[in-house]
Amino acid sequence: MRRLTLALDAMGGDFGPAVTMPAALQALVLYPQLELLLVGNPAAINPLLVKTDSILRKRLTVIPAESVITSDAKPSQAIRASRGTSMRVALELIKDGRAQACVSAGNTGALMGLAKLVLKPLDSIERPALMVVLPHQNQGKTVVLDLGANVACDGSMLAQFAVMGAVMAEQIMGVNNPRVALLNIGEEETKGLEPIQHAAALLREVPSIKYIGYLEANELLTGKTDVLVCDGFVGNVTLKTMEGVIRVFLSLLKSSGECGRQGLLMQWVKRWMKRRLIRQFGQLNPDQYNGACLIGLRGTVIKSHSAANQRAFTAAIEQAMQAVERQIPDRIGARLDAVLPKSD
Amino acid sequence: MRRLTLALDAMGGDFGPAVTMPAALQALVLYPQLELLLVGNPAAINPLLVKTDSILRKRLTVIPAESVITSDAKPSQAIRASRGTSMRVALELIKDGRAQACVSAGNTGALMGLAKLVLKPLDSIERPALMVVLPHQNQGKTVVLDLGANVACDGSMLAQFAVMGAVMAEQIMGVNNPRVALLNIGEEETKGLEPIQHAAALLREVPSIKYIGYLEANELLTGKTDVLVCDGFVGNVTLKTMEGVIRVFLSLLKSSGECGRQGLLMQWVKRWMKRRLIRQFGQLNPDQYNGACLIGLRGTVIKSHSAANQRAFTAAIEQAMQAVERQIPDRIGARLDAVLPKSD
Repeated sequence: MRRLTLALDAMGGDFGPAVTMPAALQALVLYPQLELLLVGNPAAINPLLVKTDSILRKRLTVIPAESVITSDAKPSQAIRASRGTSMRVALELIKDGRAQACVSAGNTGALMGLAKLVLKPLDSIERPALMVVLPHQNQGKTVVLDLGANVACDGSMLAQFAVMGAVMAEQIMGVNNPRVALLNIGEEETKGLEPIQHAAALLREVPSIKYIGYLEANELLTGKTDVLVCDGFVGNVTLKTMEGVIRVFLSLLKSSGECGRQGLLMQWVKRWMKRRLIRQFGQLNPDQYNGACLIGLRGTVIKSHSAANQRAFTAAIEQAMQAVERQIPDRIGARLDAVLPKSD
Repeated sequence: MRRLTLALDAMGGDFGPAVTMPAALQALVLYPQLELLLVGNPAAINPLLVKTDSILRKRLTVIPAESVITSDAKPSQAIRASRGTSMRVALELIKDGRAQACVSAGNTGALMGLAKLVLKPLDSIERPALMVVLPHQNQGKTVVLDLGANVACDGSMLAQFAVMGAVMAEQIMGVNNPRVALLNIGEEETKGLEPIQHAAALLREVPSIKYIGYLEANELLTGKTDVLVCDGFVGNVTLKTMEGVIRVFLSLLKSSGECGRQGLLMQWVKRWMKRRLIRQFGQLNPDQYNGACLIGLRGTVIKSHSAANQRAFTAAIEQAMQAVERQIPDRIGARLDAVLPKSD
């Protein structure tokens, strides 16, 4: 089994080490090939490790970092003052060849900017994008990007995201000639904002991309496209809307039918059926697929939801492991060279 | 019982009279006080009315309109060439005092522009907005706007939407001093696009508005705010994402547990539980609350989803009836005068 080393920004996210440490330990238990570099304040991290089994302990190293970029920091300012922060040190571990990928639940804008600064974008990519692979109704999956790395996008950025998304669908999901759509508020050509219309015009001219037009947000989970492209503001809102609705459904499901006195058999059947439904819908549970991949860089960076719980942060670590195993940056780089002209 | 006359754009939407006519007849059956003016091509409408009961028939009038604005028409062009279209004739019936409100499933941009042209906005309102009242997890409701009348918005437009939304929550939902939030991709002040930050600054200066800050899209159904404000592009995407996810859930629920052979009691319990869950989630079914209200005008206009089925279009007619009964334009107008300065 090939060893795999990840750097974790232990301080990022709403809960910091209280979530990242138990998640790290859980991942070490689950994956014997995994080694972790825990970047952050040793005074906050070490107390959470005292009870750790000595064999697990050997597979983790605490890398001290003095400070942390807060989630309310303005990205431009945070980046200027980023030396020695847990996020930056974690990214530098990739650059120095000590880690193969990094996971952070910290400030999205700062992570995007710092990753670009430290790891550099691939040739012909102006701006990296945050991508997630969502399960859809018809058993398959859909690549969705950007989810918040770029709050405002012009048409050429959206077209680049489309190309990166298509490469991901091809290389990672194994889809031949994946369908690519732009998220819009109508399917007619006249609909939407100017950057979307511009991206549509650009994509129609790329012969190697199977551009299928605009798609509306109610088609998100229907599997009508393999790749769905939007700007980071809209993508973030779409993903969070979906997550919110799913959580409401799961909580309604859990609390349903809990009134009244019923026979034992009835109670048992109901519990059985609820478990079954929760499992069925569980594949849509946001905790299962937490961890968006920042693609378009010469390195692998996974952004966890800042409010992730332990289960969700472990899922983000798993995303990072998969991204490393699938050699995402190399594959995107190789395919982009064939599709897009190099930028200067 | 007070008579209530609505104009229907019979030709609008993806299905035209095939949906609008059965929905109109259903509404006439349900509401004895209702009279309908069906605006459109008599050759398309009349054949669908031949079997109509003669008593119902007396409460509907076909108003001929030669042409229809298609859903792929560019709004600016469609408005220039709008004379004699079903949408415009329906709006003119309000202006002429023959109808108290109008319902259309047609082109959103054209409806917005024509409604503004024919009915005129209220004093101090630059642009009307599409609003919907969504049920939330905690039994209450949330006013959400704009849902697509204005794809791009500046800060002052968003602030006006916030004021209109607060008036709606107060006057229609009976909420005292309603909480108002802006939809954003983070709760921190530095997050999001410039128009949202500008709107936040404006709202902090309006003492009569209880502005509570930014809210993320995963809070849409949690009841943390009474009014949620966003631009029309984002609002449309949010609403449609929600609708899409809910439809996937309802269809998973309907198809769940249909494999295998089971005893009669087990089958019965499962059916009973599924019906119960579908009813519980049914309040979130998009067909139940179809019909967004175009507010900020001197008249009542309801926009139905263009893909509405008969049940959903009937719901839009019901929305129009409620809006008339609640005298929405007058109430917004009166309250706006107190809160906002008059525009020139």
